[in-house]
Amino acid sequence: MSGSSLATSINKISGNSQTVRDDQVAVEEPLEIRLGFETDSGRTESSVSITMRTPGDDAELAIGFLFTEAIIQSAGDIALVKHCGPAAPDSGNHNVIRVELESGVNVDLERMQRHFYTTSSCGVCGKTSLEALRTCGAAQQTDIATRFSKAVVTALPERLRAAQATFAATGGLHAAAAFNTAGELVACYEDIGRHNAVDKVVGELLSQGLIPATELGLIVSGRASFELMQKAVMAGMPLLAAVSAPSSLAIELAREFNVTLVGFLRGDTFNIYAAEERIA
Amino acid sequence: MSGSSLATSINKISGNSQTVRDDQVAVEEPLEIRLGFETDSGRTESSVSITMRTPGDDAELAIGFLFTEAIIQSAGDIALVKHCGPAAPDSGNHNVIRVELESGVNVDLERMQRHFYTTSSCGVCGKTSLEALRTCGAAQQTDIATRFSKAVVTALPERLRAAQATFAATGGLHAAAAFNTAGELVACYEDIGRHNAVDKVVGELLSQGLIPATELGLIVSGRASFELMQKAVMAGMPLLAAVSAPSSLAIELAREFNVTLVGFLRGDTFNIYAAEERIA
Repeated sequence: MSGSSLATSINKISGNSQTVRDDQVAVEEPLEIRLGFETDSGRTESSVSITMRTPGDDAELAIGFLFTEAIIQSAGDIALVKHCGPAAPDSGNHNVIRVELESGVNVDLERMQRHFYTTSSCGVCGKTSLEALRTCGAAQQTDIATRFSKAVVTALPERLRAAQATFAATGGLHAAAAFNTAGELVACYEDIGRHNAVDKVVGELLSQGLIPATELGLIVSGRASFELMQKAVMAGMPLLAAVSAPSSLAIELAREFNVTLVGFLRGDTFNIYAAEERIA
Repeated sequence: MSGSSLATSINKISGNSQTVRDDQVAVEEPLEIRLGFETDSGRTESSVSITMRTPGDDAELAIGFLFTEAIIQSAGDIALVKHCGPAAPDSGNHNVIRVELESGVNVDLERMQRHFYTTSSCGVCGKTSLEALRTCGAAQQTDIATRFSKAVVTALPERLRAAQATFAATGGLHAAAAFNTAGELVACYEDIGRHNAVDKVVGELLSQGLIPATELGLIVSGRASFELMQKAVMAGMPLLAAVSAPSSLAIELAREFNVTLVGFLRGDTFNIYAAEERIA
């Protein structure tokens, strides 16, 4: 868990007793993602995002972010990923990562600027966001025949929790995992930000050549927002399951792109908000 | 609850039974905050943020955001707040709000650009962020003599939950509230984003002339991140209490600015991570 949790001194109050002890807390630090790419006038570099994240899987995070934001199209676009800049004080974590693109990969700078601006690729209204997804290559998932059994779906929260080493120590991290139709977790990550945990999962899948992940589902701790559904759509995943509530815009997006959306997944009960035909 | 939740049709799975019914879900929609202000060459307008939020208290959200991001210094900087642009399809919510500043209020455009870019006022490392807070007028809270009793602190989660009308209906919203030393909630808001709920609280306090809120604490559902602690510091609040875990950077910031930080607030137990002298 080096880097993802650290010990800190706390005062623990319980009724009338007070004890001073060390406790593990989840690490939160900023990561700047920089992009190196070719233009008509030679190679250049641009900062594309700063996100508060839990250190430890920065390459997966950067790759997944660039893909779900439609800045890169495939793992083949990437020549090199490396940390750069000085280590952050005290922690030893490097908080800048540079992704070098292959020569000839086209980067839409104006699109990137829009992304800075809108922070999570949302438009001014839901319709605009849906339109943006349509134009950046996100596919309707109507034809994906993958099915997940109820038993697989209801077993997911326990499997996710069992894989969350840092959550167990700190209580302070979200998790996301890709799973197959047998219910096995094929990629699982923790982060202080749920969207970062999803980017790490997508980054690993992309590196392994598993995108579009038409035979994998995505499970997230906590709630399902528009942003998480957008990432599932971009990754070509036919199912998103959340332990807690989905938002109205996540549901709208799921129905538009025919992604199965499961929420309030607890014990042997859950709700299906869209594309229920994929639950066998 | 008009605007903050809506009914949608779901499939509810429970063991082997399946029922179709209507359920309430939390509304998530983007809000664009636009700023009108005076420059040497006349009045101009600029977009400063797009955030995914739950509609309903957009003026408080916009004012609180502008203040906690140090774009405005006081309620007196604001001449007018009004929705503009067309209503979003289907919902009737207006998703653009315009804040007109008084003549003579100076806006640091370059600073605003940096804010777009970093999305939540974080720097590339924690030290940079702390430095930024120092230079934008955030005060060390060492001299704040306000004290909160253990009984007041442990009663907060239930009071917060009781005030969360939309959470009760949807299970999908975060909440934040300012409370006084008697434990009364003086401003309480819900939102799909915890940071938005805090901005709404700060926006109301600013409008009421209660900032710096040196005699009020801030309670949030869920976890305490760097961003929430930064907003508490900007509002001059001497205590931040979270129902769940704080992050490493939230703790670091609390210790730097001497804000009391309470976490894992459940039943009659909680942890104190910084400035424990304010818990009587």
